[in-house]
Amino acid sequence: MPEPVDLMLQIEAADGHGQRVIDATLDLGVPDRMSRVPTPNGLCEPIWLREHGELRVAYRARVAIDRPAADLARLAAVPLHRLPAEAVPYLNESRYCPSNKFHAFVDRRFGELEGGAKIARMRDWIESRFTYVAGTSTAETGALDSFVERRGVCRDYAHVMIALARAAHIPARMASAYALGVEPQDFHAVAEVYLAGDWHPVDATGMARGDAMARICVGRDAADIAFLTAYREIELIEQSVEVKEA
Amino acid sequence: MPEPVDLMLQIEAADGHGQRVIDATLDLGVPDRMSRVPTPNGLCEPIWLREHGELRVAYRARVAIDRPAADLARLAAVPLHRLPAEAVPYLNESRYCPSNKFHAFVDRRFGELEGGAKIARMRDWIESRFTYVAGTSTAETGALDSFVERRGVCRDYAHVMIALARAAHIPARMASAYALGVEPQDFHAVAEVYLAGDWHPVDATGMARGDAMARICVGRDAADIAFLTAYREIELIEQSVEVKEA
Amino acid sequence: MPEPVDLMLQIEAADGHGQRVIDATLDLGVPDRMSRVPTPNGLCEPIWLREHGELRVAYRARVAIDRPAADLARLAAVPLHRLPAEAVPYLNESRYCPSNKFHAFVDRRFGELEGGAKIARMRDWIESRFTYVAGTSTAETGALDSFVERRGVCRDYAHVMIALARAAHIPARMASAYALGVEPQDFHAVAEVYLAGDWHPVDATGMARGDAMARICVGRDAADIAFLTAYREIELIEQSVEVKEA
Amino acid sequence: MPEPVDLMLQIEAADGHGQRVIDATLDLGVPDRMSRVPTPNGLCEPIWLREHGELRVAYRARVAIDRPAADLARLAAVPLHRLPAEAVPYLNESRYCPSNKFHAFVDRRFGELEGGAKIARMRDWIESRFTYVAGTSTAETGALDSFVERRGVCRDYAHVMIALARAAHIPARMASAYALGVEPQDFHAVAEVYLAGDWHPVDATGMARGDAMARICVGRDAADIAFLTAYREIELIEQSVEVKEA
Repeated sequence: MPEPVDLMLQIEAADGHGQRVIDATLDLGVPDRMSRVPTPNGLCEPIWLREHGELRVAYRARVAIDRPAADLARLAAVPLHRLPAEAVPYLNESRYCPSNKFHAFVDRRFGELEGGAKIARMRDWIESRFTYVAGTSTAETGALDSFVERRGVCRDYAHVMIALARAAHIPARMASAYALGVEPQDFHAVAEVYLAGDWHPVDATGMARGDAMARICVGRDAADIAFLTAYREIELIEQSVEVKEA
Repeated sequence: MPEPVDLMLQIEAADGHGQRVIDATLDLGVPDRMSRVPTPNGLCEPIWLREHGELRVAYRARVAIDRPAADLARLAAVPLHRLPAEAVPYLNESRYCPSNKFHAFVDRRFGELEGGAKIARMRDWIESRFTYVAGTSTAETGALDSFVERRGVCRDYAHVMIALARAAHIPARMASAYALGVEPQDFHAVAEVYLAGDWHPVDATGMARGDAMARICVGRDAADIAFLTAYREIELIEQSVEVKEA
Repeated sequence: MPEPVDLMLQIEAADGHGQRVIDATLDLGVPDRMSRVPTPNGLCEPIWLREHGELRVAYRARVAIDRPAADLARLAAVPLHRLPAEAVPYLNESRYCPSNKFHAFVDRRFGELEGGAKIARMRDWIESRFTYVAGTSTAETGALDSFVERRGVCRDYAHVMIALARAAHIPARMASAYALGVEPQDFHAVAEVYLAGDWHPVDATGMARGDAMARICVGRDAADIAFLTAYREIELIEQSVEVKEA
Repeated sequence: MPEPVDLMLQIEAADGHGQRVIDATLDLGVPDRMSRVPTPNGLCEPIWLREHGELRVAYRARVAIDRPAADLARLAAVPLHRLPAEAVPYLNESRYCPSNKFHAFVDRRFGELEGGAKIARMRDWIESRFTYVAGTSTAETGALDSFVERRGVCRDYAHVMIALARAAHIPARMASAYALGVEPQDFHAVAEVYLAGDWHPVDATGMARGDAMARICVGRDAADIAFLTAYREIELIEQSVEVKEA
């Protein structure tokens, strides 16, 4: 970065909602400027940085997960008019999840099921029909493309899962996470659906379990949860993620 | 509606933020069920209805506007790291505003300007190059299409305005409104940009002024602010809007 | 049309290739100019018109169909390197048929079948899963949208059929036609696939049979076969089609 | 390629139409099968190959270019009804060139010009506003995206050029070529427009001149002119192009 650049960093494991940060260190070197701006939902604290030259970020944390593996299929849907205000926007279409287009498919294929049973069937449907392939999707790829192409990476699986859930009028959002079992190890992304009064992670890739992942932040889809957003063009030199069970 | 349908209604003028509802009546008949769910930002109170058969909604309000016509060109941009948390998501791409694609154009065409001066120039650029034509855009049309086609209705003008603003790293959202001067009279939509510590309406169609419009609700783009959302297929029989100066 | 406009008209039943025009009258009034330009494939003769004011076109023809109802499922695929040169371009993606995206789906769902049997299964798959609904698709709608939305009109069914066929490396094109059994009566559109050395119509809507339709013209998809193309904006006042068995 | 794959190769310089192949050698090793299928327009002879294992292709040719550098701006447009049949399809929208969306822009920006003068101004407009950047566009990128993003490689420049020309009702197609002056050296792609009774190359990147390029093949857009099309997934190990003046 030859000139100073504003950066937003979203890489810290969130504290609360089924997980507890035991200890964590974040080494940013000496940035020109740094500040935190907790999101309105209180779920994460993105970091604004202003930096020039080369930025090295090292983050290490131990996180205790206390999120019971819910039996998704037994969770009830919340009637629309009982949804909390913060869940309502997650019924709407978003950048990568044009959910309204999926109504007919969802009605036909999953119409006889309700709530968590419907979500579980959707997850299984995606997992059995899609192939996990790196390098075929881009930052442009949305749920429409992925649904047709039947392949992609975690981000693409999550987009399709979210689109299907919303098409069934079940609020769905996207979470970035550190998850055990993800191959190759990297930032992971999963859908989260609102059922039985809470948000529940759903990983249509089948790689990660809710009780073995630490959420970083949430948003409507990939447009909201990038681990690094640069407000000018930069070059990413290297990145690695390691997740281990203690 | 032969069977009961969940509906979300967003048609009431908001109270506060530069406008005051003097008096208002909302006649919904006798719905099967009705409840309000104020949005997290406190700006509007969508109404959940459950209804079957025919629904007639009549809303009438007197609203005092106390929103000075800001000189947009003199408003300063807020540095990214000083943005309030609630403004940050409005930097991101959304369903109809894939703002990241507009960086090169915005840099080249408006790069020498800052803050409100940049926004004012963008608004003028759109207004002078686009043609207001009903019937050419659909619910699918986004800022990318409209930017190329150079035409549309208020919704399309707002989407392009929002995409350009975000591409310049200025938070921008969409507001529905009742506005004087809109021809033909209908629900109106405008962009709102975050400058100098507050949100400011920007109408690239040139039809409405900020001091002559009553905001209904806000969202990332048209996906969030529909005046009526039905969670099953319904038929819209008739709709009319009348806005008058008292 | 207040000023003179160039128009291309493609409404005459083609003569040959399984159908014979017994007699036909075309009444164009007195256009400013008119000429015919047979397409390179010799299948149809589009008409160039130059006209101002109001244009009325009346076309009436009797066409004998001599196209045996082929048993699609028994037709063999032609090996790629034996395809005639004119069929090769119909393997490629086109405006409304981005066929390359459908490879994984086609391999998985229809991979064990070959040639006509594969096409027949695709046709049945579409017919059983899609709903024929007017007014939901627009001139922008392509096979990707229709595949997800599972609905549309004849044009949309044909686009999906063509995209699936090409994804299986079977040349497929689109034909406009006058067809018995189409409800409501209108210009009809069907896919045509190249099997066993010839082109065979396939109507995934299930409404029309190959031995009961008169082809008008062919092209890669809807971009090529419009019954009327105006090279300036015009207003279409009225249009009607009637197809009867003699 | 572990199993036999059908491949289509389009890499030989065409003979005729302003260029003459003096001598050429094509070394394909010993493919399982090979055949040529001249295109209907007689402009190129794609090669079908069937191959397994590793395929090495070496092509070397000397081509004499006898294509005078036309003064584009002086070439007259051909009236629509006088276009030869083979040029007519190149007025239509295609996979990567949804030209109909560009009418309003083209009318407003270039409306006062005609024929070659209009094309020349379009070419200059693109060249001055776009940035040649590798790696930002993908196989999905079309003229709509490129027009908004204002950047890309030769293929993207050509798509925008073609879309603008067709929006002005001037037939435009895409040609692959070996061209002097292209940096980095690679297969090149340019638009060709139909003016004054012939096709004329137009390179909006400004890198290549019509009298210094050898055409390989032509088509509606990038969907038709790939140098290698594999009808099963393969891995491209290495590719290099060298073009020199004799």
